[in-house]
Amino acid sequence: MYLYSNILGTFVFNQNLEIREKIMFSQEESLKYLPLLSTGETIEPETKLLQKFKDIKDLRKDKALFEKYAEKVQMFMLGYLDQYHERNLFLTKVGIRDSIQEDALIIQAVSSLVELNRSINMTAKRLREWYSYAAPEISKSLEDHKVFAQVLLEKKPETLLKDKGIKNSMGKVLASKDMEAIYGQAKLLLDLYVVKEQKEIYLQELMHKNCPNLTAVAGYLTGAKLLDIAGSLRDMVLMPASTIQLLGAEKALFRHMINKNSKSPKHGIIIEHPLIQQVGKKDRGRVARALADKISLAVKLDFFKGEFLGDKLVAQLKEKFKGVTL
Amino acid sequence: MYLYSNILGTFVFNQNLEIREKIMFSQEESLKYLPLLSTGETIEPETKLLQKFKDIKDLRKDKALFEKYAEKVQMFMLGYLDQYHERNLFLTKVGIRDSIQEDALIIQAVSSLVELNRSINMTAKRLREWYSYAAPEISKSLEDHKVFAQVLLEKKPETLLKDKGIKNSMGKVLASKDMEAIYGQAKLLLDLYVVKEQKEIYLQELMHKNCPNLTAVAGYLTGAKLLDIAGSLRDMVLMPASTIQLLGAEKALFRHMINKNSKSPKHGIIIEHPLIQQVGKKDRGRVARALADKISLAVKLDFFKGEFLGDKLVAQLKEKFKGVTL
Repeated sequence: MYLYSNILGTFVFNQNLEIREKIMFSQEESLKYLPLLSTGETIEPETKLLQKFKDIKDLRKDKALFEKYAEKVQMFMLGYLDQYHERNLFLTKVGIRDSIQEDALIIQAVSSLVELNRSINMTAKRLREWYSYAAPEISKSLEDHKVFAQVLLEKKPETLLKDKGIKNSMGKVLASKDMEAIYGQAKLLLDLYVVKEQKEIYLQELMHKNCPNLTAVAGYLTGAKLLDIAGSLRDMVLMPASTIQLLGAEKALFRHMINKNSKSPKHGIIIEHPLIQQVGKKDRGRVARALADKISLAVKLDFFKGEFLGDKLVAQLKEKFKGVTL
Repeated sequence: MYLYSNILGTFVFNQNLEIREKIMFSQEESLKYLPLLSTGETIEPETKLLQKFKDIKDLRKDKALFEKYAEKVQMFMLGYLDQYHERNLFLTKVGIRDSIQEDALIIQAVSSLVELNRSINMTAKRLREWYSYAAPEISKSLEDHKVFAQVLLEKKPETLLKDKGIKNSMGKVLASKDMEAIYGQAKLLLDLYVVKEQKEIYLQELMHKNCPNLTAVAGYLTGAKLLDIAGSLRDMVLMPASTIQLLGAEKALFRHMINKNSKSPKHGIIIEHPLIQQVGKKDRGRVARALADKISLAVKLDFFKGEFLGDKLVAQLKEKFKGVTL
């Protein structure tokens, strides 16, 4: 008598490989037993022959064996192959489904935010160029894109020019249809800003909830960008701090590796961090290294659901670079 | 007695270069007389000396002359220099203002449309990737981005999957907050489509009004893109048809010029035209050349405000390539 377990159930065979008894798993049960099966903690098949059932492809390759037990094997296969295939598909789908972690959502959110910023810049640049036909003198005095769009939707170009004390503007009085098109561009810009704010809030919440330590040390936006470049929280945990330090500087790094004359980069995207922004250029490498160390620690705490030490890590960093400012 | 006219007015000098009488122009009058002055149809200064006043820089360079008449010249300059400078600035501004033609508006409109399409594609791609966490099986069956966004805003992922008869989806049931973020992206996409339609209508109107012939021959979108690449309607009028044929294929052309192994391009952006899309690859060069010829004619008609012959040009093209289809 042989005992054999797979994702479908447990089978009892006699010496002629005929099934004598069986206990079938439901989908839910096979989900429960799958980890056990794959770590080998269930009852192992007792003969090498039966073990081969686990991989039907293997059995097919071994022609001599296949022919010897052809009849019985076929019986076994015919009876369970469809079911086996179906169950396997189910388990694969569940595997894919469960591989979607919160960090995947973070990556989608931060990517969409970065792309939105690209759209905003494109839209704003076009708006300024377009509006300059009506009142070229206004654009320069309103550097903030959002304020620019708001102001020009509130007041007519003539009024804006008058307010600024500009006589003989180089601008042209455009037909109302043409002005409507420009205002449409301004409205689009403001709408994009609204969406941007929503996305920022969502990303901030996701980061605070799932990566509190990383968020405390790197900031929610830079933290999320690091995650995006790394690919996942798990990938980031496996990275040495020196790799984290250079995330986002891949181009410069490869340039350095090919051409030794070009300097090796000292920091990737973490240059956005206020701590690095505060210090002089010559100290940036040092600060970046220390920051990457703390980020590496923070990421491990977040991945293994450790306690919140983010504030302490930040305090340590601030203490270390107390004297170093621009 | 000498008579001298410039943008400020007309002056009568005696032999000692003292002003005896003058008629000053208002801003509007100088606008009216400027074209006359510059084409030389006003009364010319009667001595070579006085002519020099036209360009104060010249007078300053000619030291001997300057010193001889220093006192009088200074009197003249002191009295009118500020006014002269101001009037010149005014006229320059008016010049800039009047250089903004309708084709400049067309270029802004088509550029903003092209940029908007870029935003739409970015947003749609992100939406599909993001939504695939919830129901990866849906994206493929809805190829149109707009329809995709509409459908997923109408129905929940579970319902969509059920409608499609998909059991055991690889999708994950996401928290409502996460779904809200995805729906936000879908709404953004639909909003961008609304703006796109408005822009298209505006551009279409502009093109029909200002470039009816070009619009008839090339279509409003391709026509506007050609204008954008050329820089202005005037620039396009000055181009030979062979240049128009290759507008938008600059990269390929330069590649060909540097490396003779790479083929010379046969068409630029006019490849978008349905007539070229209809014919087989080997005939494209021929059709593109004929099309560019007609576009070149159409542009001249539009620039010089000639009659509308667009439909005739199109009929001629269609007649010529009657037999040539894929």
